Amino acid sequence: MTERLITSLTNDTVKSVRALHMRKEREFTGQFLSEGLKFIGEALDMGRTPRLLMVGMEARPHALLDRARAATEAAGGEIVVVTHPILEKISRRDNPQTVLAVFDQVYTPLDAIDPSSAPAWIALEQVRDPGNLGTIIRTADAAGCGGVILIGDCVDPYSVEAVRATMGSVFAVTLSRTTPEAFLEWRKTWPGSVIGTRLDATEAPGSAHFTRPNLVLMGNEQAGLTDALAAACDVNVKIPMRGRADSLNLAVATGIMAYAATEDR
Amino acid sequence: MTERLITSLTNDTVKSVRALHMRKEREFTGQFLSEGLKFIGEALDMGRTPRLLMVGMEARPHALLDRARAATEAAGGEIVVVTHPILEKISRRDNPQTVLAVFDQVYTPLDAIDPSSAPAWIALEQVRDPGNLGTIIRTADAAGCGGVILIGDCVDPYSVEAVRATMGSVFAVTLSRTTPEAFLEWRKTWPGSVIGTRLDATEAPGSAHFTRPNLVLMGNEQAGLTDALAAACDVNVKIPMRGRADSLNLAVATGIMAYAATEDR
Repeated sequence: MTERLITSLTNDTVKSVRALHMRKEREFTGQFLSEGLKFIGEALDMGRTPRLLMVGMEARPHALLDRARAATEAAGGEIVVVTHPILEKISRRDNPQTVLAVFDQVYTPLDAIDPSSAPAWIALEQVRDPGNLGTIIRTADAAGCGGVILIGDCVDPYSVEAVRATMGSVFAVTLSRTTPEAFLEWRKTWPGSVIGTRLDATEAPGSAHFTRPNLVLMGNEQAGLTDALAAACDVNVKIPMRGRADSLNLAVATGIMAYAATEDR
Repeated sequence: MTERLITSLTNDTVKSVRALHMRKEREFTGQFLSEGLKFIGEALDMGRTPRLLMVGMEARPHALLDRARAATEAAGGEIVVVTHPILEKISRRDNPQTVLAVFDQVYTPLDAIDPSSAPAWIALEQVRDPGNLGTIIRTADAAGCGGVILIGDCVDPYSVEAVRATMGSVFAVTLSRTTPEAFLEWRKTWPGSVIGTRLDATEAPGSAHFTRPNLVLMGNEQAGLTDALAAACDVNVKIPMRGRADSLNLAVATGIMAYAATEDR
């Protein structure tokens, strides 16, 4: 096994991995950075191998790390061993994970989605907060949704912060991205309910009638769904607001909707 | 109306308000900092007035701001007008809100809680993330819970980050804090269900039988409930994990539990 040792903070590999904090670099390379062994385990289980596996010199022996090394080499990826300051520099953290990995981004075209392969799917319009998006991807996975469709100008699901919040689910669910126009065209072929949340709706998500597969549309943190997308829903519900708060955090609201759309009743 | 103009970044009032970013200073003064007019409106509606109202020189006229000024003065609070750099310094943000306010922290003793005044209450053990805690307070309010009880070593609900995430709900729900021992003693008097989430439970929150008022116990982000608190629950449920993810974000999980514990069924 050929493993390069890197000790210089100005090494080109270090620079290019660190550059994956920038969206422009991620778009250009089609790659993203994940931190920690848990992510690599999830990836391997889903048939995805690192392009680059970066192992800190202080990383302790671990069966999963051995498996990651073997899989990376078998797939033609690169393995580098680095010092602690390099991990800190790349992670931008004082307490970095000792194993980092670079993976290819994967987006599934809308046309390749099989709606009936899952009880529900989540579509998000113009989501703004990377932590929210990562948490929603994690929640979609936990609830048993097929995937998350990003409509219009959304934050990047492959940003370091979003990936971190997915806790590994970024590998487990389908991710798609599309324009509002293409989404509206594709939506016409959707075989089940298309569910929107509206403040003027009267039915609660727990009691509304849905026909699977469910497609749950959630709008942006501030403004909710745009009129065009709200009009594309055929079931509208409102999560009850029983106190003084007039809205929920987007990830919490999506969690409640995701479970309402996937539970048996 | 007497309003002081402050232009110096090293003014003592500026320093003492900025110091409210530190937990030690918040504990010492029993005060906290909120940003933006929305919070002040929530506070006034709940009968709470600022100790200090800080208005940026560029703040636009607003009926709510007039109301805040009048209420602050009537309650013997202080009103200061400040420059934009002072707002930036205190907020630690490039785009600060133009109105800030300092309020007294309020904690309700456990013995003063009337369980039957709400369909459900949330208790959190050793919650670690201020954003999660703030989001949970917002969610508890939205779901119609009576309040949030903090058990053991939790992050501060009155930190600037937590308060921000409450979106004003910090004024709308009861907050209590207690030790595990005092909680366990008080729990004996709880008239309804005490609900825990456990990985080895089989019932889903949507189908389990609860007797109101419900008390929902949620554990820490990494470790869940400690054994002592888990043993104090008389109903145990598990939010179904249908994908590869083995857990949910704490705020999302608490949101699902809060709605399950407050919905009519």
